[in-house]
Amino acid sequence: MLMRAALELLDQNDPLAPFRDRFALPPGVIYLDGNSLGPLPRATVGRVMKVVTQEWGNGLIRSWNDAGWIDLAGKVADGIARLIGAAKGSVVVADSTSVNLFKLLGAALTLRSGRSVIVSERNNFPTDLYVAQGLAAFLGGRHTLRLAEPGAVMKAIGDDTAVVMLSHVNYRTGAMHDMAAITRAAQDHGALMLWDLAHSAGAVPVDLAAADADLAVGCGYKFLNGGPGAPAFLYAAPRLHAELRLPITGWLGHAAPFAFETEYRAAPGLGQAVVGTPPVLSLAALQVGVELALEAPMRGIREKSLRQVVLLAELINQAAPGVFHCITPIDPAQRGSQLCLSHPDASAIMQALIARGVIGDFRAPDILRFGITPLTLSYTELWNAATTLGAIMAEGAWRDPSFAVRRTVT
Amino acid sequence: MLMRAALELLDQNDPLAPFRDRFALPPGVIYLDGNSLGPLPRATVGRVMKVVTQEWGNGLIRSWNDAGWIDLAGKVADGIARLIGAAKGSVVVADSTSVNLFKLLGAALTLRSGRSVIVSERNNFPTDLYVAQGLAAFLGGRHTLRLAEPGAVMKAIGDDTAVVMLSHVNYRTGAMHDMAAITRAAQDHGALMLWDLAHSAGAVPVDLAAADADLAVGCGYKFLNGGPGAPAFLYAAPRLHAELRLPITGWLGHAAPFAFETEYRAAPGLGQAVVGTPPVLSLAALQVGVELALEAPMRGIREKSLRQVVLLAELINQAAPGVFHCITPIDPAQRGSQLCLSHPDASAIMQALIARGVIGDFRAPDILRFGITPLTLSYTELWNAATTLGAIMAEGAWRDPSFAVRRTVT
Repeated sequence: MLMRAALELLDQNDPLAPFRDRFALPPGVIYLDGNSLGPLPRATVGRVMKVVTQEWGNGLIRSWNDAGWIDLAGKVADGIARLIGAAKGSVVVADSTSVNLFKLLGAALTLRSGRSVIVSERNNFPTDLYVAQGLAAFLGGRHTLRLAEPGAVMKAIGDDTAVVMLSHVNYRTGAMHDMAAITRAAQDHGALMLWDLAHSAGAVPVDLAAADADLAVGCGYKFLNGGPGAPAFLYAAPRLHAELRLPITGWLGHAAPFAFETEYRAAPGLGQAVVGTPPVLSLAALQVGVELALEAPMRGIREKSLRQVVLLAELINQAAPGVFHCITPIDPAQRGSQLCLSHPDASAIMQALIARGVIGDFRAPDILRFGITPLTLSYTELWNAATTLGAIMAEGAWRDPSFAVRRTVT
Repeated sequence: MLMRAALELLDQNDPLAPFRDRFALPPGVIYLDGNSLGPLPRATVGRVMKVVTQEWGNGLIRSWNDAGWIDLAGKVADGIARLIGAAKGSVVVADSTSVNLFKLLGAALTLRSGRSVIVSERNNFPTDLYVAQGLAAFLGGRHTLRLAEPGAVMKAIGDDTAVVMLSHVNYRTGAMHDMAAITRAAQDHGALMLWDLAHSAGAVPVDLAAADADLAVGCGYKFLNGGPGAPAFLYAAPRLHAELRLPITGWLGHAAPFAFETEYRAAPGLGQAVVGTPPVLSLAALQVGVELALEAPMRGIREKSLRQVVLLAELINQAAPGVFHCITPIDPAQRGSQLCLSHPDASAIMQALIARGVIGDFRAPDILRFGITPLTLSYTELWNAATTLGAIMAEGAWRDPSFAVRRTVT
C-alpha cells in the first residue's frame, strides 16, 4: 500500500520541483494533459506582450531586422535540435506537423523514386496516415500505404519500401519504439526512416544522430510548451541535405528571398524547408517553451517521468482496484511519458474527472489518457488525482447524464 | 501647386479619420508599409493577452471547447469571406500563403489532369512562381510553367492550360488585373483561375463570386492587419467543393477529427483545407484585424486610397521634380493601393527615408514602394512624407555610407 506520506517525501526531494513555479498553472487543477497542450510558461506572457506592443506596434516592419524576426525560427530550431540529438542546422521550425510530414514524405518518395511502399502502423496518429494517403492519391495511386499491426513493423519493411514512417511514442498507448533498431532495419532494406516525435521531444531522451535517423517531424505545443497550435519542426540528417528536394518551395526557403528572382534556388542546408512567413507571435511563445525545456536535465525528466507513470498506475489501482486495464507497456524502455487506461465508459469518466479539476483526456474509443510532465507535476498530485478517480468510480459520479455526451474536442 | 492647407482640409473632412485611433502607431513615424506588415490594432493587445493568460494559462486544453478555439479559424474565415465577396463556407484560414498556393495549385492540376500548363506572369510575386516550380518538379516534370510578360497574360492562356495563377494586385508595381475578364478568358479555355489576393484583401474591392473565380489565396498580415506571419487564407468556389481533392490531407480536415479513424474522409465543404492545428495566438490577432476591416466601408477605403496614391505621386513630384519614375498605372481601374517609384538608388534612398521616420520599403532592383492604408494614413502625412523625401534628395542625404549596404530584410 502506497501512503500519501511517501509521495510527500518524494516531492521534498524532487530536484525538478523548482520548475513548477516557472509555469502559470491555475489553482484547483491537476494537469495531466501536457501531452496534448503544454501549460503556459510564466515568461511567455511578457515575451508575447513585448512582441505585440513593442516589436509589432512600435517597430512595425523594421522588426524583421531590428528585433531579429527573420532569424527567430532558426534560433528556436537550434534549441530544438539540442533537445533531440540533432546537429545544428538540421532542424527547421515551420508550419504544422501535418504539413511538415507532407514535405518530408514527399521528399522521401522523390529520393526513393524506384520504390512504391510507405510503411507505417495502423495505430499511428491519424494525421500521419492521412497525409500519406493524400500524398499517394495526389501522386496518382502509384504508392501503397502498408499498415503494420502493433509489434509487426519490422516484418512489414521490404525491398519495395521507400520510407518507414512511425511515431516514436504512440499517442494512444504511450508505447515507445526502439528508434535505433527500427531505423537500422529500414535502412538495411534501403528505405528512409521518418520519425514523428510529437510525443517524444521534451518528454523522453531522443538522439536522432545516434540512431542515424533520416527524417523526423515534431510538435511545438505538447511537451515543448509552445502554446496552442505552436509551429512544428522537421529534421533531416545533414548527409541528406544536398540531395533533398521538398515538394513545397516557398519564398523564405529561397537562397536569396529578397532578391525576388524568378527561378527558385533552394537555400543551403535545410533552409528550403522554411517555405512561407512564420507566425511570429506563436513562434515567440514557442521560443520561451523551448528555452525552458533546455534548462532542465533530460536525464532527470526521464527518471521522474518513469517513476510517476508507475506510481500513478499503482495509486489508481489502489483507489479503484481492478477497474481499469493498463495499456501502457510496463517495460520502461518501451514507454513514453504517459499512462493510458482503457475502460468502456472512458469518455464519461474523463469528463467527471475534469469536472473535479483533474485534467487528462479521452481518446476514442475507450482510453483515459494521462500525460506525465515532470517539470510541473508533483508526486502528491498523483495521489490526489488517483483519489479523485477512485471517488468518482465508487460514487458512480460519471453516470451523471451531463457526462454522456462527448464534447467537440475530446 | 498642392498646398499643405488643402491636405489639412481633406483630413478635416475624412470620414475614415476616426479609424486612425483604433491602431497603435508609434509617434514620429509615417507608415507607408501596411502592404508589407499592417499596423497593430489597439484591441489586439488585450485579445492576445486574454488568449495567453486566461484561455491558455487558466483554461488549458479545455479552451478548445470552452473558449471556442476549435471554431476560431472558421469565424475568421467567414469574416474574410465577407471582405472578398465569397459565400460563407468558401474560405478557410490556415497555413501560409505559400502552403495554400501549393494546396490549390495541386488540386487544380488534379482537376485538370489532362492539361499540362500553369500560366502565370514573370513579374508575379516569386513565392507563387516558386510553389508552381516545386510542384511541377515534384510531379516529375510533366507540367510547364508558362510565364507571360506584363500585358500578355490573355495570349498565354490556351487549351493546354490547366490553371491560370495571377496576383490580383502586383506587389512591385501596384498594377491591378481585371479579375472578371481574365477569369472568363481562363474558363473559356477550360482552365481554372487562381487569384492571389495578398495585396487586395482589405485594400481594394474584391468580389470573387461576381467574377466567378475558381480559386484564391490571400495573406493575413498585410491589409488585414493580422500581425507578423498571421495565418493565410484560401478560397474555392462552392461549385468546386464536391470534386476538390487537396494534396495535403491532415487530421483537422477530416470529417471526424476526434474519431481518430484510420482512413481519411474529407470534411464537408471546404473543411478539408484546414489540415493541421492552427496557431491560436496568431489566429486570435488576425481575428481582431479582420473584424476591424469589416467595420470600415470598402467604398470609402477605395475612394481615399485612389486619391492618396495620386496625391502622394503629385506631392513627390513637387518636392523632387522629375527625380523618380512612377511605375504604378495612372488608370484607377488598373491600380491597387500602393505607389511605386523607380530610381537607380532606391535602396539607399529608402533607408534614408526610414531613418527619418517615413517607412516604406525597397523592392529589388530599383523600386521605392509606398503602401497606402486609408484606415490609418492622413493626407497631411502624405505632405510630410513627400517633403522629407524632397529634402533627402536635395541634400543628397541618401549618399551617406551607412545606407549603402542593403539590410537583411528589405
